[in-house]
Amino acid sequence: MDSEIIANIKALGIDMINEAKSGHPGIVLSSAPILYTLYANHLNVIPSNPSWYNRDRFIMSAGHGSALLYATLFMCGFDLKVSDLKSFRQLDSKTPGHPEVGKTPGVECSTGPLGQGIATSVGIALGERLLHNRYPFYQFNTYVLVGDGDLMEGISYEACSLAGTLKLNNLIVLYDSNSMTLDGSTDNTFRENVMKRFESFGFDTFLVDDGNDLDKLNAAIEKAKKSDKPSFIEIKTKLGYGSNLENTNKVHGKPLDIDDITQLKKKLNTSNEPFYVNEKARKQLIDIINSRTHKLYEESIINCSRYVNDKLNKNINAIKDLFGFNKYNILNYNYDLPNKPESTRVTNQKIMLEIARHINMFVGGSADLNSSTKAYLTNMGDVSSSNFEGRNIWFGIREHAMGAIMNGLALLKLRPFGSTFLCFSDYLKPAIRMSALMHLPVTYVFTHDSILVGEDGPTHQPVEQLVMLRSIPNLNVYRPADAKELVGCWQSILNNTNNPSSLILSRSDVVQLENTSSLKSLKGGYILDDDEDLELIIIATGSELSIAHKIKQELKDYHIRVVSMPSKEIFLNQDTEYQVSVLPTNIKKVVIEASSKYSWFDFTNHIISIDTFGKSAKADELLNQFNFDYEQIKMRIIELLSVK
Amino acid sequence: MDSEIIANIKALGIDMINEAKSGHPGIVLSSAPILYTLYANHLNVIPSNPSWYNRDRFIMSAGHGSALLYATLFMCGFDLKVSDLKSFRQLDSKTPGHPEVGKTPGVECSTGPLGQGIATSVGIALGERLLHNRYPFYQFNTYVLVGDGDLMEGISYEACSLAGTLKLNNLIVLYDSNSMTLDGSTDNTFRENVMKRFESFGFDTFLVDDGNDLDKLNAAIEKAKKSDKPSFIEIKTKLGYGSNLENTNKVHGKPLDIDDITQLKKKLNTSNEPFYVNEKARKQLIDIINSRTHKLYEESIINCSRYVNDKLNKNINAIKDLFGFNKYNILNYNYDLPNKPESTRVTNQKIMLEIARHINMFVGGSADLNSSTKAYLTNMGDVSSSNFEGRNIWFGIREHAMGAIMNGLALLKLRPFGSTFLCFSDYLKPAIRMSALMHLPVTYVFTHDSILVGEDGPTHQPVEQLVMLRSIPNLNVYRPADAKELVGCWQSILNNTNNPSSLILSRSDVVQLENTSSLKSLKGGYILDDDEDLELIIIATGSELSIAHKIKQELKDYHIRVVSMPSKEIFLNQDTEYQVSVLPTNIKKVVIEASSKYSWFDFTNHIISIDTFGKSAKADELLNQFNFDYEQIKMRIIELLSVK
Repeated sequence: MDSEIIANIKALGIDMINEAKSGHPGIVLSSAPILYTLYANHLNVIPSNPSWYNRDRFIMSAGHGSALLYATLFMCGFDLKVSDLKSFRQLDSKTPGHPEVGKTPGVECSTGPLGQGIATSVGIALGERLLHNRYPFYQFNTYVLVGDGDLMEGISYEACSLAGTLKLNNLIVLYDSNSMTLDGSTDNTFRENVMKRFESFGFDTFLVDDGNDLDKLNAAIEKAKKSDKPSFIEIKTKLGYGSNLENTNKVHGKPLDIDDITQLKKKLNTSNEPFYVNEKARKQLIDIINSRTHKLYEESIINCSRYVNDKLNKNINAIKDLFGFNKYNILNYNYDLPNKPESTRVTNQKIMLEIARHINMFVGGSADLNSSTKAYLTNMGDVSSSNFEGRNIWFGIREHAMGAIMNGLALLKLRPFGSTFLCFSDYLKPAIRMSALMHLPVTYVFTHDSILVGEDGPTHQPVEQLVMLRSIPNLNVYRPADAKELVGCWQSILNNTNNPSSLILSRSDVVQLENTSSLKSLKGGYILDDDEDLELIIIATGSELSIAHKIKQELKDYHIRVVSMPSKEIFLNQDTEYQVSVLPTNIKKVVIEASSKYSWFDFTNHIISIDTFGKSAKADELLNQFNFDYEQIKMRIIELLSVK
Repeated sequence: MDSEIIANIKALGIDMINEAKSGHPGIVLSSAPILYTLYANHLNVIPSNPSWYNRDRFIMSAGHGSALLYATLFMCGFDLKVSDLKSFRQLDSKTPGHPEVGKTPGVECSTGPLGQGIATSVGIALGERLLHNRYPFYQFNTYVLVGDGDLMEGISYEACSLAGTLKLNNLIVLYDSNSMTLDGSTDNTFRENVMKRFESFGFDTFLVDDGNDLDKLNAAIEKAKKSDKPSFIEIKTKLGYGSNLENTNKVHGKPLDIDDITQLKKKLNTSNEPFYVNEKARKQLIDIINSRTHKLYEESIINCSRYVNDKLNKNINAIKDLFGFNKYNILNYNYDLPNKPESTRVTNQKIMLEIARHINMFVGGSADLNSSTKAYLTNMGDVSSSNFEGRNIWFGIREHAMGAIMNGLALLKLRPFGSTFLCFSDYLKPAIRMSALMHLPVTYVFTHDSILVGEDGPTHQPVEQLVMLRSIPNLNVYRPADAKELVGCWQSILNNTNNPSSLILSRSDVVQLENTSSLKSLKGGYILDDDEDLELIIIATGSELSIAHKIKQELKDYHIRVVSMPSKEIFLNQDTEYQVSVLPTNIKKVVIEASSKYSWFDFTNHIISIDTFGKSAKADELLNQFNFDYEQIKMRIIELLSVK
């Protein structure tokens, strides 16, 4: 029956691509036996309950293999109909062009941009270890299918190097090794000894020399499950196996022609009728899976219930965390907030520590910049291969993997944070985009937020990063001015489970302003200092707010309002009435922010900004050089006031 | 005398950091013997002529080692004075916080963001091979010093994997292996077997078990120079060797205290006087270098002169290319331009082919997307380990390394291009930033430039990428509407040797418009269709220009001007008079671009844009779904016209 099921998966995948007139047949034909073997004999899932907490996770990192994945999920009994397969890649279907989490039962992670899936899988595997240590009934494996493309991407090396360091033995990487990419043979581009590479990372490696040999596939996966290291299984396959274009790059990314489909189906000994389903085979696959996993499922429910029962009167927060029922009231926590100038990165550490004491799922770290970003939970333990109780993750100097790993943690309902310098947010842009696409509540903590970085020079001084972040759909960017605003930002961040956040912090001390407010910060923007008969509204964020405040204090002859705008996105989400009450349309406005003016043109064309690369020098000298010191800013404001 | 010179380099480096009150002493003390050995005995340079074409290149990938590099360059006789060392990290000094090419004689590449230096070095090594095949008198080695941070970054794996595939035996990587990073021991983050990893890439590997043993260092470098593969030398060192903080992370990034400096200098047997220079030692080092390299220098000048002499009457272009004297007149080339709808990516291939026939230094490729981006020079040969005559570079699925490698090629005055989908420009943002910082004329060709990508879905549909690119200082972004504009854009790109460019191309066919102009495109923006008594100006780019044009044709009752804006940056560089003639301030304006509106707020608040993530569906359905089909855009324009 194995071969009939595999044939049916292949035929459905090919039909989907043919119907959609686009898609990737090559991987359907090379990897169907791998997916079949995995789902039939190893992957602990309950197709009728795809959100079972303790299911094994499978990630299709080679996201262009979506047709294969959907066809497999359909045959396994996940809630997909033939009509869903027929609407592959069509508007608002359950079967989009690349896998999208939340759209298709059984899809665990959005994939497509190569390398993201494997790195996110490392995050899921790490998350399982963290959860297991908090809730012992959590225990599952993470499987991921990768192609050559995934393995050439830098992020896959970064993530796997960390997986090896952390000895994540719950991670099993299946490598569809077909020596072929879109443009041609990997001989042109990728002569790396991939097995040796994974050995160098500390993986156990296994070779399956024939990807069509189910016994060999089963044996390798069995061994991998027993390893005390992460596992890497290289599976030799032929791209487009059985097609007339077998083993050529032409079979990678375009539908097969009708003649080829006909001969292929004949070879597969299956019906030539499009979207034919061998119901007997399908039923058998469903039975195989359910009979294998049913008992595990029941046990895991009992284990979880016992735990909940046990904790119910002792630690209700742990249970709320577990089920995601928690609304957090960060504003009420007991902080030791500064009453004198302090950098927001330093204040942030105190706030994060208090948050971590209340929220067990709050974990994270930095890309080897704890010492500078201060995003470190002092005395709360470090995650290592021998300690998954710790709250601090040492990502290493791997910004990009840090982002994708956080996505994996967030997929398991942890509340991850990761930090580096704002300038290096560039390195993890593709992962931030995936957080935003998947609506994952990941918190990116970016410090050293302007040319005030000083002596480290232009490579370390952010200019265009804030607008890069603000332009990403679904991402909220916060740049608090002082400690009170920072508390408000965290309140907003932690109670938003549907969006990633980026928290922008200063390296230098900021003034603690009297009129700032945690509560008002929840609206994204608010009036800090007001006046009557307004002539000008100064909008400022972060370290620039105190400059605006001081200018207002000094220019007593003018009628100036100062608006603090810790989060533009949150402000623009308020009702129009509130927005207009803060920023009336008929009053002249100016923005002060030490960053690219592209962020602010929607509010005004008067922007006091920094739009060129910085320089290596003392911070004060830089401010002067870039016309951004207090006196120069004040003069520009006066100039603006004088133009009627 | 070795030890005196090394002691002086160390003392100067430490003094510089102490004077600047910031910097990284750890690497100064761990790696001074490595740099000394390299410069004294191996690196073929002429300190008095740092732009000698055939010099060996040394890249300080661990850019925080700037003090070490500057102190070494000073001792070697490069044009640096003690006063320059004293102004380390100060405004407009010759010794900025991280190395910046063009600011300091002997600095070959700006570094600082980890991983960029090693990847750019691969580009330089590749460039040397390409130049050698065009101009046989070019022949030199590229050395690069990396730390743990460089090697954890994904880009270093990507680049080195390609270096191994291409067997770049002119590349020698020196690894300062001190097991310590900013936050602590690499045991926490990086347990990889680095030697094995480099073996897996196809490198020859060598171990120097004591980085203070000059004989071992010399022997390893000697062997590496003779290898027929790229070489990787792991050199065991102690971070901050000799400091009281030796072998701790505390010595990485902060100045040593005075007591520590005193005891260190005593240990080094050198003067305690700040910025003391042992002139005898310095002179000796200068003599060692010059006597070793002088003959090579003379020979290389003769070889080059002979070649020039030989070619003078035969191939003047090759000589112009060589010396960078060429002004290109792309407009006059003989193109087979389409007269019917064709995607700009397809047209671009024809234009690039013609450019390549004229410009020998024009080389490039894609991140395994030639088949889609069409950025491939058909029949002009592929670069491989056995063929460096080819014009097409197979970067593999390594977008980030592609960017940095192009930076390396451009540093050697080649004119590189690299392509991928616009959506994946995210992956190479940090490398684009380095192109912009270094003013390198790299051309990024990004195709599939909007949601019109269609069925591949939101992971492949760019939204916020155009504003990300436009906000990068020094980068010019071009989005031509049709074939004629595309020619104009290339004319602008190729004659700008001071800025990187990003060329944005469509996947779908675009109409060839009658009024578009190559020549006018050189101004970045121009009037396509005009009228009197203007009521509205429609600004559009790329595939949206034909929509604007059609709307103007249809709405005959209104007075509309259509402005094509293939490059906003170039337009904003024109004189104000021209800008105002195209976009008079008192006329209502609207922009049509299928991308984030953040790009255009400086021109108007009326922007017809796409600001949310796309979906997987047919292109036509998507346009409708996102209110971006022709009829909806027309209705919005009419609405705008009706508001007085």
